[in-house]
Amino acid sequence: MPGDIVDRFIGLIERRQLDDALALLAPDGEYDNVPFGPITGVDCVRGILGPFVERFDEVSWVVTHQVSSGTPAAGVVMNERLDRFRQGERWIELRVAGLFVVRHERIALWRDYFDQGQFQQAMADLG
Amino acid sequence: MPGDIVDRFIGLIERRQLDDALALLAPDGEYDNVPFGPITGVDCVRGILGPFVERFDEVSWVVTHQVSSGTPAAGVVMNERLDRFRQGERWIELRVAGLFVVRHERIALWRDYFDQGQFQQAMADLG
Repeated sequence: MPGDIVDRFIGLIERRQLDDALALLAPDGEYDNVPFGPITGVDCVRGILGPFVERFDEVSWVVTHQVSSGTPAAGVVMNERLDRFRQGERWIELRVAGLFVVRHERIALWRDYFDQGQFQQAMADLG
Repeated sequence: MPGDIVDRFIGLIERRQLDDALALLAPDGEYDNVPFGPITGVDCVRGILGPFVERFDEVSWVVTHQVSSGTPAAGVVMNERLDRFRQGERWIELRVAGLFVVRHERIALWRDYFDQGQFQQAMADLG
């Protein structure tokens, strides 16, 4: 199932093994945060995602629904998540719907839908 | 496939046959626009969706990806859409990721993820 690579990807992000996670992306993969716009290429994804994940003490992305079609080599995965981040004793969370397009056994497109206002409020709550 | 009821639902909204569309919702179904919050029950959904759809001259929801699991009686459907609305000669559009939970051959939960800022900008563009 194409969901397996997404499960592995999320698990590696939660453990903050970013290099291993990024190895699951296609080299020219696209990461599209819908309210902010897309970036392309593993190096750009590392540049955005790395500092963000590193600032937190714990990362937990709770997948509440996940459905897919296709094969492990080429398919489409969508999931509903509650992306949670802990800094010190404070948890923030963001409600997200994600789309992952898998090609040649790599994630070629990762697109997250969320509300920019909820994201900014969560970040502000960190103080 | 549980996607069939979602296809019918969207087709009916596009034709603005709202009563027929709402007949596909569970009577106590939930409609959750994530940035705005959920409402429950067909009458409430009609009260929100009806005036919104009626103000436009044309409605076109372009489904760019849709995946599902389960059966027509009980399943989960997620889709990525470009919800387009025409007023006069002006089209506005909103990027949406939707989750539909089907139970007893009805849509029990319809949850749309989008950016509130993009929605408000689109509405403002109508002038």
